[in-house]
Amino acid sequence: MTPTPERAAGASHRAAPLHADLDQVPLETALLALADPVRRTIVRTLANAADWERACGSFDVPVTKATLSRHFAILREAGLLEQRDAGPKRLNRLRRPEFEARFPGLLELALSDR
Amino acid sequence: MTPTPERAAGASHRAAPLHADLDQVPLETALLALADPVRRTIVRTLANAADWERACGSFDVPVTKATLSRHFAILREAGLLEQRDAGPKRLNRLRRPEFEARFPGLLELALSDR
Repeated sequence: MTPTPERAAGASHRAAPLHADLDQVPLETALLALADPVRRTIVRTLANAADWERACGSFDVPVTKATLSRHFAILREAGLLEQRDAGPKRLNRLRRPEFEARFPGLLELALSDR
Repeated sequence: MTPTPERAAGASHRAAPLHADLDQVPLETALLALADPVRRTIVRTLANAADWERACGSFDVPVTKATLSRHFAILREAGLLEQRDAGPKRLNRLRRPEFEARFPGLLELALSDR
């Protein structure tokens, strides 16, 4: 059996994460993604880190692993989060310029924590 | 019995609407208020009308009167809507400059309808 590119590239058996086409993300999805305080903490943490620096387990948020996975999925769907697997780790990047181009000013506002 | 100022001023027996202190409105409340398409339609309608021009019954939205009242309450709580009674009518004003000062750019984004 030929390994899939995903399996060949890393040790993970997880499906590769799906990413949103930002042109297709509705404003509603973006607003709801940023309305949650845990997700804003994740976004703020990523904004203060280098791209791909943060693994999924490295966020200081008071939720279970399953809930955290759901938050990551919502952030991906909103076009805020890019993820890639590197061996056993899933690494994260905030899609800051892409999101800013689609929803000017919104991420700044969310990061300002009013 | 002395009439309350509300009853003295108008014909309405309704309680006067309560308005948010915008300095106290959390970002979350603002984002959730604007995440709903019916509320964005109300906001857009008000943005295209003069202050106090629109009565509560004049919005073209496919919801019951009770649901519409709830939408108005959520918009008031988010600091987006000011209401006052004038005889049998309740008139509306978008708190555009106040909201803009608190959440710069957010209302523009909501009005752009991405």
